[in-house]
Parts: sequence; C-alpha cells; structure tokens
Amino acid sequence: MYKRQLEYLGIAIGELATHSTFEETVYLLWNGRLPTRGELAEFEGKIRANYDLPPRIAELLAVMPKEAQPAHAIRTLISAMGLIDPKPNSTDLASIREKATRLLGVAPTLLAAFDRHRKGKALVAPNKTLSLAENFLYMLNGERPTPTMAKALDVCLVLHTDHGLNNSTFTARVIISTMSDIYSAITGAIGSLRGPLHGGANEGVMVMLGEIPSVGAAKGYVEEKLARKDKIMGFGHRVYKSYDPRATHLKVLAKQLAEDTGNISLYEKSSAIEEAMATAVAAKGIYPNVDFYSATTYHCIGLPLDLFTPMFVVGRIGGWSAHIIEQLSD
Amino acid sequence: MYKRQLEYLGIAIGELATHSTFEETVYLLWNGRLPTRGELAEFEGKIRANYDLPPRIAELLAVMPKEAQPAHAIRTLISAMGLIDPKPNSTDLASIREKATRLLGVAPTLLAAFDRHRKGKALVAPNKTLSLAENFLYMLNGERPTPTMAKALDVCLVLHTDHGLNNSTFTARVIISTMSDIYSAITGAIGSLRGPLHGGANEGVMVMLGEIPSVGAAKGYVEEKLARKDKIMGFGHRVYKSYDPRATHLKVLAKQLAEDTGNISLYEKSSAIEEAMATAVAAKGIYPNVDFYSATTYHCIGLPLDLFTPMFVVGRIGGWSAHIIEQLSD
Repeated sequence: MYKRQLEYLGIAIGELATHSTFEETVYLLWNGRLPTRGELAEFEGKIRANYDLPPRIAELLAVMPKEAQPAHAIRTLISAMGLIDPKPNSTDLASIREKATRLLGVAPTLLAAFDRHRKGKALVAPNKTLSLAENFLYMLNGERPTPTMAKALDVCLVLHTDHGLNNSTFTARVIISTMSDIYSAITGAIGSLRGPLHGGANEGVMVMLGEIPSVGAAKGYVEEKLARKDKIMGFGHRVYKSYDPRATHLKVLAKQLAEDTGNISLYEKSSAIEEAMATAVAAKGIYPNVDFYSATTYHCIGLPLDLFTPMFVVGRIGGWSAHIIEQLSD
Repeated sequence: MYKRQLEYLGIAIGELATHSTFEETVYLLWNGRLPTRGELAEFEGKIRANYDLPPRIAELLAVMPKEAQPAHAIRTLISAMGLIDPKPNSTDLASIREKATRLLGVAPTLLAAFDRHRKGKALVAPNKTLSLAENFLYMLNGERPTPTMAKALDVCLVLHTDHGLNNSTFTARVIISTMSDIYSAITGAIGSLRGPLHGGANEGVMVMLGEIPSVGAAKGYVEEKLARKDKIMGFGHRVYKSYDPRATHLKVLAKQLAEDTGNISLYEKSSAIEEAMATAVAAKGIYPNVDFYSATTYHCIGLPLDLFTPMFVVGRIGGWSAHIIEQLSD
C-alpha cells in the first residue's frame, strides 16, 4: 500500500477526482472498494447525520477566543469531541468506524462555525440534503455555493484525503499504536499537518501569489528566487517526479473557477509561474504539486488564508481514519 | 542520548530522585547541566509565574462536560493554550523555552481545576510560594499536603519526566519536524501517552491491586495469571532488564506514604506481588518498573484512578519539551 502511488487502492486519482465524490473516495479508502449506489447513499446518510454541531461543543465554541488561529481551533475542537463521547476509548472496528464517520461529518461544521464565531456572525445550521463540500460552503458563507465552487472544493477534498504515509498519517499511526483512541490520533495528526513543511504549503503558495504584483512579474520573481536558491512553494513532491496527476485535474477546475469568480489574473499568475518553472527546472523533475492550484481554488471559493490548512484537515480526516482502521484491523 | 539509560544526562536517576526536585530535573534536561542555586530560583520563579489559570481558559473550563475523561480534558486544555498565545507558532529557541515553561507551570493548574470543576467544587487559586508538586496537591485538595505526600509526588514527577525515546516523545518529535508548534507537539504526545500500552500502565496496576482481595491472595493471583499467560501490569521494561533503579527509590517512599496514610495493606499487596513475581519470573529479567509503585503512591496521595495518566502527562511535559528544544536546536 505504500508504493509510489498515482492512485488510491488501484483507482487512478484523476479518475476519482473526475467521476467520484469525496464521500465515495472515503468509502473506497475505508473499505478497499468503491460502494454500490445503495451503499454510497447509506454512507452519505451516516455522514450527514453527524453534520449538526453538538450542543456541548457549541457551548465551548461560544467562549473560544475569537482571535485564535483556526488551525489551533480545529485541533482543539476535534480534541473536545472526545469529551462528549461516552466511550471515547473504544478501539473495536465497529466503534472506530462510527467515530471516524462522526468526525468526518462534524469537522466541516466545526470549522465553519469557528469562522462565523470569530467574525461575530450567527452560526448557520447545516443542510443535510447537501454533500459535505456543498454543505460546508453553505455553513461558511450562509448561501449555497455555485455548482462549480462545490465541485472544486469536492475535488480538493478528494485530492487532499490522500492515503500515503506522510508525516501526519504517520503521527496518527504512532499514536494509535499505543492502543490510544481516535480523538488522540486525529488531534495529533492535525498538529503535524499544521506545520509549514506539511499542510501549510498551500498557504505559502497564496502568500507567494500575493507577493507577485502582476502576471508579467511572475517570470522575474521566479528567476530571482531561484538565483537566491529560495524554494518556490507548491513545486516538487517527494513521490511524484513527473507531473503530479492530481495537479493536472485541479488546474482545469481552478481555471474555470477563476473565470467564474473574477479571479482570472490569479490563475494567470499561477500559470506564468508554472511556465517559468518549466523553463528553469522541469528537467530536474520539479513540477507543480497539488498545493499549487489548490491555493487558487481555495481563494476563489472564498476561503480566508488561515482556513487553508484547516480545510486540508477536513479532507485528510478521511485518509487518517483509513490508516487507523487498517492498523486496528491487523 | 538514546543509549540504555539509568540516568538523565549522566546523573544517576536515584541521585536525582533523592537529592533533586522536579524543577531541578527539568532544568537539567533543558540545559544539559544542573542549575546553580541562583539559576534554580530564577527557573522556579518563571514556572510559578505561570501557575495561574488564564481567564480565557477558565471560561472554556467552566463549560467543559463534567463527565469527560480527564485524559481527554487535559489534552483539550493543553491544545486550548494555543488559542490564547498571540504567537503560538514561534519556534525560535527563546520562544519555545518560554512556551514550554508556560505549559509546565500551567499544566498542574489545568488538571486540578478540571478535577474540581467536574466535582462541582470551587477552584483553588494556586499558591506561588509552593513547589510544583506541593501546589498541585494544594489546588487539587484545597489543603497543603504533608511533606511526605509532596515529596512522593515530586519523586514521581522526576521519575516520569523521562528522557528516552518512548512513543509519546517520538510523537512530539515527528510533529515538530514539520516545523509545527509546541502546542501541537505536546497535544499529540498526550494523545500517545493516553494509550493503555504507554501511560495507562499505572492505571492497570491500580486496577489489579483492586482485584486482589487481600495480601494473602496476591501469590495465588500472580500464579493463576501467569499460568494463563496473562500480563502482570507494572512489570518488565523494554530497556531495564534488571531492577529498575527508578522503582527502587519509589518503593521506599511508597512504603512510608502507605504507612502515613493508612494504606499499608496496599503496599503489602504490592510487595507480595513483587515477591511472587521474583520467585516465578525474575530469572527472565522481569522486575517491577516505575509504574508499579507509582500506582500505590498516587492512590496514597489521594489521586482518583482516572488522574493517574494525566498526572504522568504533567511530569512528562518536562521531557517532551527537552526533546522539542533539542530538535529545534539542531
């Protein structure tokens, strides 16, 4: 399972991103096969049943410092979910699947609720007829997203849920190996993902885009950075040494979304960076990775910069849970 | 540093437990040498300055579910400390030392406050003239501990702060390696320590002592367990293959404390288990470890069973921070 993968469990990632939803991808990771239509509907139902903000968590949220960083808030709120579970430490597989489904379903609510709380806005109750991605944007912005926005976020979640043995997944596995609990394992994994060398990379891409004043300035920016031997954020991957197949798909969507939302110059800036990099370093196998176009995407769907990493957390809960389930099955 | 150690940084553990305090031991771990008298006083002052419960954390605590398990509560409260730090992500050494000192000083307060909160008792403000161990027992019970109780807890903290590369320390190191933050690293480490295969072991010892009706029944209990190839909690250590030098010292203290607090039968039961184990398996290098007599000690100082692991957390923050400081120094 830990070979260099351009696929999740034998299914090409481009295939999943195009034809599957986030929920379907998580089912695949947790069960080793795609669901039937009926199984998917049942799984979606279970996830949606967990959309509601638990009342005891709402009380905690109401007194959370508004100036807190969202990445620290989501780590704390996921940890707090262990406080209201009457049996937080059960590690039998049925319990773990139930708890993982709970965390998967509630995580978007926790994040959207914290963002509205800090902005002093009334919380938006979830809409259980919506997919996880759609419902998140609905709770965040108070209005239903356009189909392109929902699709773009769904694709980011599919791409971010991952299944390789990266640092945060390893953290979850190390923690669960003491027969600790899923709240501890996922909370620890969030802590790892928060690091700028891990989940913080797409934030770095967005900062870089902000530093480049115009499309025309991109080439010079890249050349100058490379001359100083600085790192260009969003390029290179420890596994993929050719074009990251996840980035290809996202690029197409990011372009459409940028057009739809009046952010085309952001897309064009990204594209110009990619071109400059291709001229300079593509021979070394350094290509844009999934973080690169997810930055433009997140910006276009209206996410503030400091929700980028917590958004990554929401998607990655699917992958971390898959590893926890697998490890406890052994 | 990762050799089999009967010592912290060259100083025999028995020496530290006898002649040093917890605060002095943490100074040693963070600085690679024992402090002078003046340096120790300064370090103690910094720790004590952090005894107070921060007001924003008090607000969170006030709405925490009373039925929550303390191990989940301390994990969540330490994570929440990241919410009130205006620069939670600084990883320069001066910041990390300051934050580590803060967590070290506040952790006993968080734990005592949660225990009183769940019992519906008024919180006890810390007393900054007291050592960390004394002050913890004062805040927990609302009265100053006897010198023996304070000394026994101090020795447990010294012994538990540890410095080897166990699972939770490894977790902290994996998380900080993404250049994440100390709140994330320590929160993750708590999650690992919570596991019954790691920090939960002294809870297991206490449960076992409860299962043995009398001193006379200990031998039969051990023999029956061994015949069924069950594990006897609190025996054996992956590093120490002879008598754990930490256990020796604690045994002496546990006996005195048991006498002082009217729990001598608990000590005698422990001693009888040790004797039965010596007859049965000592040839295989299986001796009592530090968890074994810390169970009796914790019980005698009035800790409820579910505070055993969180107490371990309080001590281990010293060791985890030492590793984080060391890793960020490289």
